[in-house]
Amino acid sequence: MNLVLLYPSDFLASGRVCLTGRRLQHIQEILQPAVGDSLVVGLLDDKKGQVLSEESACPFSSGQIGRGRIMSLTDDAVELEVVLDIPPPAKLPVVLCVALMRPPVLRRLLQTAAAMGVPAVHIFHCARVEKSFWQSTVLRDGDIRHELELGLEQARDTVLPEVVLHKRFRPFAEDILPGLAGRDALVADPSGEQLEAVLRGIKPGGGSGPRVLVIGPEGGFVPFELEKFREAGCRVASLGERILRVETAVVALLARLYL
Amino acid sequence: MNLVLLYPSDFLASGRVCLTGRRLQHIQEILQPAVGDSLVVGLLDDKKGQVLSEESACPFSSGQIGRGRIMSLTDDAVELEVVLDIPPPAKLPVVLCVALMRPPVLRRLLQTAAAMGVPAVHIFHCARVEKSFWQSTVLRDGDIRHELELGLEQARDTVLPEVVLHKRFRPFAEDILPGLAGRDALVADPSGEQLEAVLRGIKPGGGSGPRVLVIGPEGGFVPFELEKFREAGCRVASLGERILRVETAVVALLARLYL
Repeated sequence: MNLVLLYPSDFLASGRVCLTGRRLQHIQEILQPAVGDSLVVGLLDDKKGQVLSEESACPFSSGQIGRGRIMSLTDDAVELEVVLDIPPPAKLPVVLCVALMRPPVLRRLLQTAAAMGVPAVHIFHCARVEKSFWQSTVLRDGDIRHELELGLEQARDTVLPEVVLHKRFRPFAEDILPGLAGRDALVADPSGEQLEAVLRGIKPGGGSGPRVLVIGPEGGFVPFELEKFREAGCRVASLGERILRVETAVVALLARLYL
Repeated sequence: MNLVLLYPSDFLASGRVCLTGRRLQHIQEILQPAVGDSLVVGLLDDKKGQVLSEESACPFSSGQIGRGRIMSLTDDAVELEVVLDIPPPAKLPVVLCVALMRPPVLRRLLQTAAAMGVPAVHIFHCARVEKSFWQSTVLRDGDIRHELELGLEQARDTVLPEVVLHKRFRPFAEDILPGLAGRDALVADPSGEQLEAVLRGIKPGGGSGPRVLVIGPEGGFVPFELEKFREAGCRVASLGERILRVETAVVALLARLYL
């Protein structure tokens, strides 16, 4: 936790917050500050258009980052005096679409995507995804949000990525993806051309890379699915002869395109 | 396991192997082939200069990859008739140096480094590494080798990376690193210049990137350590304002430089 996320409900009075639970525990056990020390803090922006009531004690705009000075620290709560005056870091100009994966891998992927600055993650079904994965508790709203918040806290960001689930492949590929993709979408699959050649085709003017990345299950897509992606305007690229785990492939592609 | 690793001791007779234990279990439970099916297999190259005795039944060179046709499959063993006629994939032209990390993270890192094609990993101590990590069982020869083999099997490689441990920082920075680094070494640290600018300095002719990457603990290096790295001829670069987990930073840097 390199930044402590704050919620509007944490505010006691203008500029003063009280934290308990997971954040208190992390501050006590890992950060171990003294009264008077300052921590990096930021106000979560969950893009739900938080309309603060007139009585709200939170005087800051969603997403702002700053410092919280420790006023008191007990076993029950920590109180901070906060000043938030820095905007959150920029997001990457990309929408990430990934086939659903094993629950522990999905947890790490959600954290990593949030940490790297992905603003939107679409999770879809396809032939080589085990149907039972859709029953996983990771896919509950609260669990997804928890993993995303861990990623934000890691990377010192405050703006929650959007996560959208698509339990059926065809509506995703036929209706959703064409709207996202325009002509700048890249599908990673071993059957594709070399990445370097595909990127030259996508950004002849040296632009900033495709706006949509689609990454399949480790076994790859079936031919019908690749056909649907091509119909949706996507280009298919191979990351090379080595078969990488999905979470490695996601980080590698994001870094190759945007770092 | 996208490739089943073979050892010289698996060979019963010329071109015929018998597998038990972990590999048998994976073949039975995950790959679930029938007799007559073929699997991708490869002969491990552990660079120990395996001098095969005249009686050895293994007719192939270390590192070769090919197919193994299932001749029999029981609860006790699987027998394959193998033909190995493809060389292993190329390694990346890089030596990776990482500060020691928490054991579960180190396990994943060793797998990922092997999968991405890193030929040599140096693991070193520095001020912000917890000393207790050096007691971890992951650092036993057999455990390191197991994680590396999992990475090779993932990426269809056969050549075991070299792993070297350096329990003291100064001998590593003063004696080992200058020999590895020459003038093309990159240290990732938040205090550095922007990566893009540093890379322009390192490869004005559009070369293939630095030959040595040094990645510190998440808390970064202390000033004394950065000074030692600069004395060893390294350049210090920042990956941006987001603080990434070590395993994410390693994949991101390798992909940015070599994908």
